[in-house]
This record gives sequence, structure tokens and C-alpha cells, in this order.
Amino acid sequence: MDNKFPGKDISDEDLKTKFPLVAKKNKNHFSSFKVAGVEFGKQLVTFAGPNMVESRDLILDVAKNVKKIGADFLRGGAFKPLTFPYRNPKYNETREEGIKWLSEAKKKYNIPVITEVMEEKYIPLVAEVADIIQIGSRNMQNFPFLTACAKTQKPLMLKRHFGCSLRDWLGAAEYILYEGNKKVLLCERGVSAPHTHRSTSRFLLDLQVVPAAKEVTHLPIIVDPSHATFWRPWIESMSLASVAAGADGIMLEVHPDPENSAVDPLQPINYKDFKNLIKKMDILAKKVMKKTVLS
Amino acid sequence: MDNKFPGKDISDEDLKTKFPLVAKKNKNHFSSFKVAGVEFGKQLVTFAGPNMVESRDLILDVAKNVKKIGADFLRGGAFKPLTFPYRNPKYNETREEGIKWLSEAKKKYNIPVITEVMEEKYIPLVAEVADIIQIGSRNMQNFPFLTACAKTQKPLMLKRHFGCSLRDWLGAAEYILYEGNKKVLLCERGVSAPHTHRSTSRFLLDLQVVPAAKEVTHLPIIVDPSHATFWRPWIESMSLASVAAGADGIMLEVHPDPENSAVDPLQPINYKDFKNLIKKMDILAKKVMKKTVLS
Amino acid sequence: MDNKFPGKDISDEDLKTKFPLVAKKNKNHFSSFKVAGVEFGKQLVTFAGPNMVESRDLILDVAKNVKKIGADFLRGGAFKPLTFPYRNPKYNETREEGIKWLSEAKKKYNIPVITEVMEEKYIPLVAEVADIIQIGSRNMQNFPFLTACAKTQKPLMLKRHFGCSLRDWLGAAEYILYEGNKKVLLCERGVSAPHTHRSTSRFLLDLQVVPAAKEVTHLPIIVDPSHATFWRPWIESMSLASVAAGADGIMLEVHPDPENSAVDPLQPINYKDFKNLIKKMDILAKKVMKKTVLS
Amino acid sequence: MDNKFPGKDISDEDLKTKFPLVAKKNKNHFSSFKVAGVEFGKQLVTFAGPNMVESRDLILDVAKNVKKIGADFLRGGAFKPLTFPYRNPKYNETREEGIKWLSEAKKKYNIPVITEVMEEKYIPLVAEVADIIQIGSRNMQNFPFLTACAKTQKPLMLKRHFGCSLRDWLGAAEYILYEGNKKVLLCERGVSAPHTHRSTSRFLLDLQVVPAAKEVTHLPIIVDPSHATFWRPWIESMSLASVAAGADGIMLEVHPDPENSAVDPLQPINYKDFKNLIKKMDILAKKVMKKTVLS
Repeated sequence: MDNKFPGKDISDEDLKTKFPLVAKKNKNHFSSFKVAGVEFGKQLVTFAGPNMVESRDLILDVAKNVKKIGADFLRGGAFKPLTFPYRNPKYNETREEGIKWLSEAKKKYNIPVITEVMEEKYIPLVAEVADIIQIGSRNMQNFPFLTACAKTQKPLMLKRHFGCSLRDWLGAAEYILYEGNKKVLLCERGVSAPHTHRSTSRFLLDLQVVPAAKEVTHLPIIVDPSHATFWRPWIESMSLASVAAGADGIMLEVHPDPENSAVDPLQPINYKDFKNLIKKMDILAKKVMKKTVLS
Repeated sequence: MDNKFPGKDISDEDLKTKFPLVAKKNKNHFSSFKVAGVEFGKQLVTFAGPNMVESRDLILDVAKNVKKIGADFLRGGAFKPLTFPYRNPKYNETREEGIKWLSEAKKKYNIPVITEVMEEKYIPLVAEVADIIQIGSRNMQNFPFLTACAKTQKPLMLKRHFGCSLRDWLGAAEYILYEGNKKVLLCERGVSAPHTHRSTSRFLLDLQVVPAAKEVTHLPIIVDPSHATFWRPWIESMSLASVAAGADGIMLEVHPDPENSAVDPLQPINYKDFKNLIKKMDILAKKVMKKTVLS
Repeated sequence: MDNKFPGKDISDEDLKTKFPLVAKKNKNHFSSFKVAGVEFGKQLVTFAGPNMVESRDLILDVAKNVKKIGADFLRGGAFKPLTFPYRNPKYNETREEGIKWLSEAKKKYNIPVITEVMEEKYIPLVAEVADIIQIGSRNMQNFPFLTACAKTQKPLMLKRHFGCSLRDWLGAAEYILYEGNKKVLLCERGVSAPHTHRSTSRFLLDLQVVPAAKEVTHLPIIVDPSHATFWRPWIESMSLASVAAGADGIMLEVHPDPENSAVDPLQPINYKDFKNLIKKMDILAKKVMKKTVLS
Repeated sequence: MDNKFPGKDISDEDLKTKFPLVAKKNKNHFSSFKVAGVEFGKQLVTFAGPNMVESRDLILDVAKNVKKIGADFLRGGAFKPLTFPYRNPKYNETREEGIKWLSEAKKKYNIPVITEVMEEKYIPLVAEVADIIQIGSRNMQNFPFLTACAKTQKPLMLKRHFGCSLRDWLGAAEYILYEGNKKVLLCERGVSAPHTHRSTSRFLLDLQVVPAAKEVTHLPIIVDPSHATFWRPWIESMSLASVAAGADGIMLEVHPDPENSAVDPLQPINYKDFKNLIKKMDILAKKVMKKTVLS
């Protein structure tokens, strides 16, 4: 961060007119950009796949199926964050191997890939395969890391921290835009709230943040209902609600055998449910939201 | 509450099989009931009107217009809650007079009415005019009051307190069902959350509570995005998101001249915006949600 | 509320200078008033007793012991709120009988009593025995009820709703002061917060509200750590912290046999722990807070 | 993190008996360790100084004065986090220079230093001067960074993220302990909560987390009321409450001219107020908490 030390080389004039870079310049200012032929900001985009790249077989099977059903991107984590530094062997990361499998699935089924990087040293490895690099909630305000990811000039998706406000989130996005990287997606994945714990779920999906974000920033916004709700039966309604709220894309956990998913088996949906959901989302996007859909 | 003192006259057998009354008896158990020809639980229902019954002229004008545009119910408050016991004369309650004007509007334009009652002594007055009696957030856990409202056997809409969980809310609804009154609507109107204040709004509309409620209770659920967002530009997206989340109805603040609304002038939408919104909601309800719409 | 309808009879001049009645008129304006010989606002006051008036024997035993140990008031609920309208027979309210037993304990051991009233019709019964009438969280914004309680002109303690802000709380207190009843105590008892559920307790004791309240209102403030923490091992530290934060009194659940308490057996402390705690609170109050203590 | 990849080299036996390292092994297990002659876990420790190392003169003046008054450690930030990557020149970081000035102040007035490091590359520089390295809230779950800091084997203070639970926080501490670094302090600095925004402050100081932490972990816990309350008038009461809650130390913003502090001028206290406060804290610590105090 030192060469371009924040603030140092910005003129007063620029500060008033050009910054912050996340801000809309006028009411109808919305960024759109192409990644692997998909136009974010214009189409409704779907990311689908398992929480974890559990095995080569799994990721190949998912890639084939979600591609056929109509997903625009294959998602799957090779590196997985942990609250405590210990891991049940069943849930082991696949790391370099996982990235290799994602690469294989991508080529074999011609589907672009989004996957998370968690440490600076793995950025080159992940950047080589990922069409979009995902930055997780816990790293949202890890500014040197954001800067390092931004410098790859790859499209980035910045997940919101569960305890952070829209302002905190946009401030983090600004660190990326500041590096000249303009392909930034925001991703809402649920916030901590007092009302969730006694009767609903771990997190509360904040859909109000979609119009709130669209009022102040030009960046596209994706919603991840799987992680937020942590509960399969609510995925359909929360996905549709996200599209209706104005989301530019939906990130979903899809698994051939959800109950036997290596992590969070309560949240993925199977291929059949994904197929039904994508049909409904497409109708909603076309008929009501006036968006293009790929599938 | 004394004659039927809670718990006293319930057999162990009944406690296991019949109670709680709010609970679904099976996966597809959803209540539906008719009020003024509108079938809650099957149709998408719209309540529209001003926050306050400001004047006779206003309420007549709104009744005529929202009816024409397609609202199912006229809403408007004659009694208004206050955090402090003082009121700007501009925002004065219209009370008995307001109820009379609602009655006049209802008859003249043949549109059913939903309005709030805040004190036990006004229940008979309100019950005479209202097709649905609204119980406000602050009274959600005022159990003797819930019981008194329930005993009218009029349809009731129970607004969720902004600091209460789904469990708290269903417990309150149970007090109503316990009186043999089965026409109960839940209404989500935004919760307090830490993420709202620094960058979004006063409350956070909790749409996740819609599928959460539908998983455990058979009662229809209405969403009020006007009060939650407190902000006109978000009403359209949050209304559509509510319908897509599975809401059985939408409660909207509609005013001929929103900027000059007596209370909360930032939140009502005008007739034109209401017309556009109701069209989109109708397409969404029919094409995606497979619901009937009246208009 | 009609005769003195809020706002109606207040001159502009008065609104500027006299209202709100909860507000401090200057930096050193703090109310103090005597109840049963105890001077709220000057002394550190302790309320101790069981959550519920389970039986005549229990309440007599507690009254004798907490009085001897140094409690200023006997607390105990004869009427108990319920989220759902059903009650385990073990946790049955003792209602009129409970009030009678409190009265007996009060006379026999010469200790004043604080107890909750939950319905308007029981106000006269409770007002006859209670030296301070407690208004529970769920009734905090039940304004007609607050007004009815206020009209008894008995000292009142207003518990904060777990989802309400200081402003909401003071607004509610204003309804009481408006009736000319000046003996009002605030009572903090824990708020809902997202951080509590996954690792701590049901509620989060908000001690910051103590100096926040003392900055804007002259009313004394009591803290109830038993209800907030819901956990015996934290009572001592949270009670001391409350006194150090500036609380004017502490409300504690004390029971001869906590594990067999009829409700919430995880939170009461026994006589021995109460004795140790009251000693420490007394040292703290005298040596650090420069307050008088009775015991 | 790779050589000791989490989980890989831990036997099942060890996982059951030795881990997690943050956990108490028995009821009376509390870590204590010496840093610069100060015994954390036994004494009440005070960290005092400005939010930012604004200038050489300032930090020398503060070091001299807080040392004389009785602070155990000098605190002050040379590197400062920013939500957005732009900085008012008035609030500029002093970075390497600031660290140099801290070093000078430390030697001249013989007072140990705690200061924050925000990027991996500055760890060696900060580690050379700091007696305790502070890890800020935003980096709480930046695990590679925690590991890098831990490897210095310097004492570390881990601030809690404002949106994280005790469990999240202890998970982060575990990453440090896992590196064999046992000198870890926790620091509570306020959480986001819905109740703060409309009537109190930016954050809510969570003092309940003090006994909650002491129930499950042996690590000492520091409280920072300056940052949490963001409001000078509440510092005294919240500091005393922290000590009474069982905190092992208090971190305070102290500035010779608080109103003209370069950042957050509403929260520092001046020398005189610090002197009064430290006297009260000492009495409290000795008379009630039975702790040693240095001053």
C-alpha cells in the first residue's frame, strides 16, 4: 500500500469529483462488465456448486450438471476458512489439488469458475484458474490482502462481513477500485442480528441492503442465500426474493447429495431443486425485472 | 384472561395434539379465510393508504384512487402511537372522526378497511368499521389487549415488535387463537439490527422470517415495507422481494402528495408509483408465485 | 388518556421549558425520593427475593433472610408473564394468594415489597401491598397501562424492553411523569444483541446505558443482572459492575435452594452468595461511589 | 500456516485433552505472565495514551505524564486503520516515525509500550519497540497475520471484532496459542448492537463478556471503554464497571488537550481526569477485587 499511500497523492479537486470510486456519479450510473462472456450488471447471473471441492469426481459431476441446468459459473471452495484452527478430517481442504480439479472441470465442461483465496501466497495459484476471485467475509477488511488481490486485475467478489455496515463494505471495495481494478462484485451473505437466533437461523439475509447499495454505488451486487439461511427449505424463497430485490446474481450451494455434503449439509439443494429454481428465477428476471438470462 | 386461565383447563392429551394452535399440523397446512370477499392465504392481497387519516378529503381521495388502481383494502390510522406523549399539532390523531371518515370512504367506494386500535376502550368503535383490526408493534405482547381484540371475533392483523423473535410473535398470536378467533394475519414491519443505522435505515426488513414462519405456522403473513425501510426509493424492490419471499399480502403507504404527508413523508409512494408497482406485483404473483390477484 | 390528551393542553412555552419531564434541567439534576425509608438516588438500594412467590413458606423464609443479610426490599412475582399462554403447572402463578403472602412477609419481617402488576384490573390489589409497583418489559410501551399505574401515585419501576432504545424507554417514563407521579425508577434488564447467542447468554446486560441515562435524565436507574445474564456464575461480577457503572440499585434473584427454583433455576443465588455479594457491593458503594448503604 | 497445517498433526488423544489451548483446564485455571515487570492476570494494568502518535512532542509529554500518574503502559497508534483508503492530512499516520518516537518515549520515561501493527511487513519494526503488539478488530480473523504476529513470540493483545461472538474471538486467539505463543491478552472494545444507535453511542461495551470469557478461557482480558463509548463523560463509569466486572486491565485514551486530539476528540480524557480515575480504580481493585495495583 505504500507507493500509493492512501490520501497522499490525491488532490483536493479529485477528492471532490472522482472519489470515492465506489459512488454513483448520477442516478443511472451502474457498472456492467463482461467476465467469460457473462455480462454482470445486465444479466441475472447464477453461481452454483458445492461449498467445498470435496473430490475430483464431485466437482466434475457438479460442473457437468449445473452447466446443463443453466448456471453461469461453477463455484466451490478449495481453501476453507475455520473459526478454530482445527478441522475434522472429513472436512479437509483440498487446496492446490482442489484448484487443479476446478481447472479440469472448467475446461472439460466449458464453465467459468469462481473460488475463494484466503492467503496472499496463494493468490497467483487461484488467479490462474478462477475467472472471479472470491474474498471471504473474514478478509473483508484485510486491506493489504484486498490490495494484493486487486493488483491481479482479475474480477473480484467481495463478501460482506456479517457484522459490517454498507459503509464498511463500500470502504473495503474502495481499496480494490483504488488499484485500478474495476471488476468488483459485492456479495451479501447474511448478517448477525438479535432476532435470528431464537427462532430462525444463524444469520439474517439483509435484502434491504440491495436497494440501499444500488442507491449509492454503481457496483453489481450478488446475494448468497445458502450461507445466510443455512437451511435448504428457505433457499427457493430467499433466492426469488433476492432477484426481486434487484440482485445482479445469485450464489447457490448445489450438491448431488446434499445430506452427505462434507460441510453444512443442511444448506445445499440438489440438481432437481436447482433446475426448478433457475426456471422460476428466469421467469422473474425476464417478466418482472426486465433482465437478460443466459439459460 | 381469568375464566380461561391459560394452562388450567388444557388436558395433557390436548397439549400434545392440539397446541400450540399457531403450529402447522402437517407440511401443507396453511390457513386461508375470506374477509370482504378477499381470500387470504390464496390471493396476493394489497393494503394501501396513508399512514394517517389526515382529513375527510384525503381519505376519500385515497379510497377512490387505490380502489381503482387495484388495492384490496384501504389502510389508514385514526389512532396513532407515540414514543413520547406529545404530538405536533400537524400530526394530530383524528380518532373518532377519523374512524367515521374511514367508514364513509369504505361505503362510498366499496373498499374494505384495515385500521389500528390502540386502547381497549376503543375496540367497539374500531370493530364496527374495520374489516380487519390492526394491532401495532408496541401492543404485540400486551396480552390482555390481544385477548380483548380477539373476543370481537373480527379478523386481526398482528404486527411484529421490532425487537421480538418469531417465537415471541407466534406466542402472541396464540393468545388470539386461544379465544377461538382464527382469522389472524401476521405482519412483518422491520426489526432493529446493528447494521441498519450507519448506512441504511431505521429498521431492517426481515424477509427471511417469511419462509421461517411458513415452515412452522399456518397463519398468512403480510409484509409492510413502507414502515421498515422508511424510504420511498426502496419500496418497489422491497415489495417485490416480499411477494417473491412468499408473503400473502403487502401493506403500503400510498398518498396523493407524499412529500406533504402529515407523518413520515419520506416513505409513502404516490398513485402513479403504486399503479406501476401493483402491475409488477401482479405479474410476479401470477407468473412465478402461482397466486391469484384481484386486480 | 383522554382528559389530559397528550399535547392538547401544553403551551408552546411549557413545551420548551418544562418538557420532557424526564429530562435533566441541569448537569447536577438527579431526582431522589424516599420509599419506605429508603432514599433512592442517594443510597445504593438492593431488591432481593425469588423470581416467583412460589409458596407462603418460601416467601416468608426469603423475607426473613434477605432482610437480615441487608436487602432493602423484598422482590417476588405473583403474576408472571408468558410468551405463550400455557404454563407448566410447576410454574403456576400464585396471583391473589401470592400478593397476600407478600403482604404477610412484609409485615412479619418489616421489609418493603416490590412486585409486578401485569393487568389493569389487578392494579388496586397490587398497589395495596407493593411499596413499589414493577412494570415489566412487555408492558413498557403499553401506554394506557402505564397511565393507569401512574394514577395510583405509587412509586413505579419501569423495566426496559429488551428491544428498545434509551429514547423509547424515556418516552415511556414520560407517560408516567405526565400523570404527576414523580417516583419513577428505570430498570435495565438486558437487551437482545447478535453477540450473545452463540457464546454467552440470552440477553446482553447494557451497562453503558447507565451513564447514558444519567447524562440525560434525572430518574434513578436500577440494574437487574439476574434476568439479563440468566446465569448464576456471572451475577457477582455483573452486580459489582452495575454499581461501579453508577446504578442506584440492584435487583437480584435470591432463593434458598436455587437449583430447585420454580422458574429459571440457573439464575438465582443463595443466601450465602447474596451475603458475600452485598458486602462487596457495600464496600464498593462506600469507598468508590461515595454512596450511603443501609445495611 | 502450512508447515503446521491445522489439524494435520494433532492426535485424537491430544485433541481431547490438550485442545483447544484457549480453554481452562479447571475452574481456577487463569494464565498470568509478566511483561516489562507487570504481571498480567494478577495486577490491574492500565494502558494510557493518545489514540494516535501525533507528534514527537505529544508522545513524550504523554509518556512523562501518564507514567507519573501511574499508567503501567504507554499506548499510541503509529499505524491507523481506515474504513475508506483516504485520510484527512490532519489525521495522517506517523508510521515509522511514530514508532521511533514511541521508542524514544519508552526509553526516556522508562515506560513499556503497546502499539498496533496492521500489515505483515511492519511486524519486525513494531516488534522491536513494542512490549505488547496490538492486533486490531479488523484483523481479528486475519489468520495468516495472527500466525505471523504470533511467531515473533512477543506478547500480543487481540481486540475483539465489533461483530464477533466470544467463540469467534477465542478461535482467533487459538491461532496464536497454536504457535506456542502463550502471552495473549484479549481486549473488548465494544460491539455493534441495535440499541446503541438511536440514543447512545456507536458501539455497546459488552461487559458481560468479561465473566463469560473468564468462565471458559484462562487468558487475561482487557477492556477499552474509550473506543466503545466514543464519549468522554462515560469513561469513568465504564472504566470502573470494567474493573468491577473482573477485567485484568483497562486501555484508555489520555491526551493533554482532548478537544484538539487529531482523531476522535470526543473520547480522550485529560491528565487530571486520568489521575482521578486511576485513584478510584486502584481503590476498587484493592478493596473489592483484591488485586495488586502498581501505582
